Amino acid sequence: MSKQSLQVVLRELDSSAERFSEQLEDLVSWPDSDEKNVQHTVEEILLAVKQRGDQAVLQYTQKFDSLSVESVAALEIDSARQQQCLDGIDPLDRQALRDAAERVRSFHEKQLQPSWSYEEDDGTVLGQQVRALDRVGIYVPGGKASYPSSVLMNAIPAKVAGVEEIIMVVPSPKGELSDLVVAAAMIAGVDRIFTVGGAQAVAALAFGTETIPAVDKIVGPGNVYVAEAKRQVFGRVGIDMVAGPSEILILCDGKTDPDWIAMDLFSQAEHDEFAQSILISPDANFLQAVNQSIQRLIVQMPRREVIKKSLEGRGCLIKVKDLDEGIELTNRIAPEHFELSVDNPQQYLPKIKHAGAIFMGRYSAEALGDYCAGPNHVLPTSGTARFSSPLGVYDFQKKSSIIFCSKEGASKLGVTAQRLAKGEGFEAHAQSAAYRINKTDT
Amino acid sequence: MSKQSLQVVLRELDSSAERFSEQLEDLVSWPDSDEKNVQHTVEEILLAVKQRGDQAVLQYTQKFDSLSVESVAALEIDSARQQQCLDGIDPLDRQALRDAAERVRSFHEKQLQPSWSYEEDDGTVLGQQVRALDRVGIYVPGGKASYPSSVLMNAIPAKVAGVEEIIMVVPSPKGELSDLVVAAAMIAGVDRIFTVGGAQAVAALAFGTETIPAVDKIVGPGNVYVAEAKRQVFGRVGIDMVAGPSEILILCDGKTDPDWIAMDLFSQAEHDEFAQSILISPDANFLQAVNQSIQRLIVQMPRREVIKKSLEGRGCLIKVKDLDEGIELTNRIAPEHFELSVDNPQQYLPKIKHAGAIFMGRYSAEALGDYCAGPNHVLPTSGTARFSSPLGVYDFQKKSSIIFCSKEGASKLGVTAQRLAKGEGFEAHAQSAAYRINKTDT
Repeated sequence: MSKQSLQVVLRELDSSAERFSEQLEDLVSWPDSDEKNVQHTVEEILLAVKQRGDQAVLQYTQKFDSLSVESVAALEIDSARQQQCLDGIDPLDRQALRDAAERVRSFHEKQLQPSWSYEEDDGTVLGQQVRALDRVGIYVPGGKASYPSSVLMNAIPAKVAGVEEIIMVVPSPKGELSDLVVAAAMIAGVDRIFTVGGAQAVAALAFGTETIPAVDKIVGPGNVYVAEAKRQVFGRVGIDMVAGPSEILILCDGKTDPDWIAMDLFSQAEHDEFAQSILISPDANFLQAVNQSIQRLIVQMPRREVIKKSLEGRGCLIKVKDLDEGIELTNRIAPEHFELSVDNPQQYLPKIKHAGAIFMGRYSAEALGDYCAGPNHVLPTSGTARFSSPLGVYDFQKKSSIIFCSKEGASKLGVTAQRLAKGEGFEAHAQSAAYRINKTDT
Repeated sequence: MSKQSLQVVLRELDSSAERFSEQLEDLVSWPDSDEKNVQHTVEEILLAVKQRGDQAVLQYTQKFDSLSVESVAALEIDSARQQQCLDGIDPLDRQALRDAAERVRSFHEKQLQPSWSYEEDDGTVLGQQVRALDRVGIYVPGGKASYPSSVLMNAIPAKVAGVEEIIMVVPSPKGELSDLVVAAAMIAGVDRIFTVGGAQAVAALAFGTETIPAVDKIVGPGNVYVAEAKRQVFGRVGIDMVAGPSEILILCDGKTDPDWIAMDLFSQAEHDEFAQSILISPDANFLQAVNQSIQRLIVQMPRREVIKKSLEGRGCLIKVKDLDEGIELTNRIAPEHFELSVDNPQQYLPKIKHAGAIFMGRYSAEALGDYCAGPNHVLPTSGTARFSSPLGVYDFQKKSSIIFCSKEGASKLGVTAQRLAKGEGFEAHAQSAAYRINKTDT
């Protein structure tokens, strides 16, 4: 690719333009996927694994991963092989994984929710018992793509929650498997690893097979087949959000080094061509400076073609009146990653309503949070930060209500419950409540 | 229906039977719904409302609810009409609703999660900002069925969370609308009420129309069309769990009045024929005593036909070896409602892993929790208590990660992030991190 063709043509918007609202809508809109073919293929795979278990898993693994083994047991990475991976990686990588794991663990420990209860005057006790899920499945993309950080981010919160058993699945097309991924699994405390991928792996985790145990929840990123499979098994097991393309929105006062901001935009754009990088600033000259940095820096990027496609297709530079307007836009977009690259970023925090993660100040690059700052990098995409949260320990804990009525308490509640039950036409509810009324109370 | 035909033939199981595991599996299994017709109909309705807004809502309301008005605005219950409903109901009903609302509010206030953060030695600040969703939609079934308690249970947690605007939708077929439901909405703090129902109501809430504002999350029970519509809009907006039929599991030591237990089983069975009522006891004589109570008490139940169908189709009496085995079975079933009708129920609490709500002791009838004990009555059904929780304030709050690196902190994190990014082949991530490394650190 010649330098000439690397010229990146970025969309530029101005919030004072008449049609700005419409332009913004168009920028961030993401079509609902409606792939009937994917849906149908996944339905077939789920049914086959549900009905034929291991045999179907082997068949699809041969078909999709060109991997032929005699049994699903042979697809499990045993502890000797795991140890080999951990020992075999570069010591600097091992240390980096351990440092990152330690910080992620330490942050997530603060999310642990305790059980609680309180006693009322009449002796009635109410509360919530909080417990970890029993068994969780983690999907990890495989083959050439190797994301050990994703293993840490998905497994550690489960481990911190107290999940008894974590089963990881990762495809190994033609037997290709990343040692870093296996090492990360060991460091994160994953209990078992199967080299199975695609919808068949999700099916195995949801229904269980002779060899792969059924889990209570499945988390982790994957391709459209994996996402569709998770959607289809939702209800039988829990799932995390079905993620859309990754996004960054940077709001800058114009005083951060333009090269830094350009590189932060690249770090999002290099994921894939659908990733979205948006820069907002009240400083028009700064926007142009970043644009120039982009043109200059892109040539040295190994993934420059992906970056160019992403920036030209979905990237944008937006000129706003002031930083307050920038915050307003941020809330409208509800970005997955939000870099607030300004002086005294704390003053804006109370105004930020919707963002998956807020990176404050000029030093908090998204990349630091992607790997090792501590908070999770699994974040709500495509505007879903309006109603959902980063992956956390709370996704691996669940609650049971506790209702322990004293004789006296039940008698008082019985009167109210009886009345409301009759209003709803539920006579058995009313009589069940009435039995608990102390006859001298009525 | 003659007394003869009211004889209820209940399934009886014994945990010592050879095929017990299989029998239990058969008892609690619930077929995955796979209704292509429903799916297709709902797809059409969603698309129509998305494209034609109010006009489509009016058209479906006329078609499905036999209700013809000139505009969606005419389907809104204005505050004068709301006040009329509240003033018009029986004062005892009004008081019961207020008492229940007060207790539900008081319990849920204890679920509020605060924002938190901590500072590390180098000045880096990490944490989570917790905020309420902006706008929530609540679906309430309508027509002859009137469930004011459901309005309280869905709206109050949202209100406690701090949701700015709660939009309630409730169908009013042929204009029929329950004053109790409207009164409950006022007491719970619902902001706007539209008499729209079915998939068209879910679509209006998800996409917004000229008159009905789009919301961030939709909660509340409904028929199969409503459930399928919620499933289809999931991702664009948040939804609560798609509920299956309601269930109760009672574990009794044999010392509670058999009539009480029989009525508690009825209170579940009277919901609909798919509701499930299971009684477990180590005392075979007690099981027979409850069976006799069932035969005797059912004749006075207005909903006896539904109760009979439910008990014969899905009910069961299970004889176990001892209470510990009863707890084990409970964990396998993961019931929505669990009554632990024994002496000193606290001693079993640590062993109970999976249940939506735990009703402890002989006085804690499920009916008390359904209406007014305080905890939510929206609970995970069909074994989903393995991985999900009662509806709560946490369903209407969401979190943003906070990452505020000091110059020194970013420099240290940059080294780790750079290493891990290179391992994943993300050069822009690595360079973005590297820019933040203090050159004297490397």
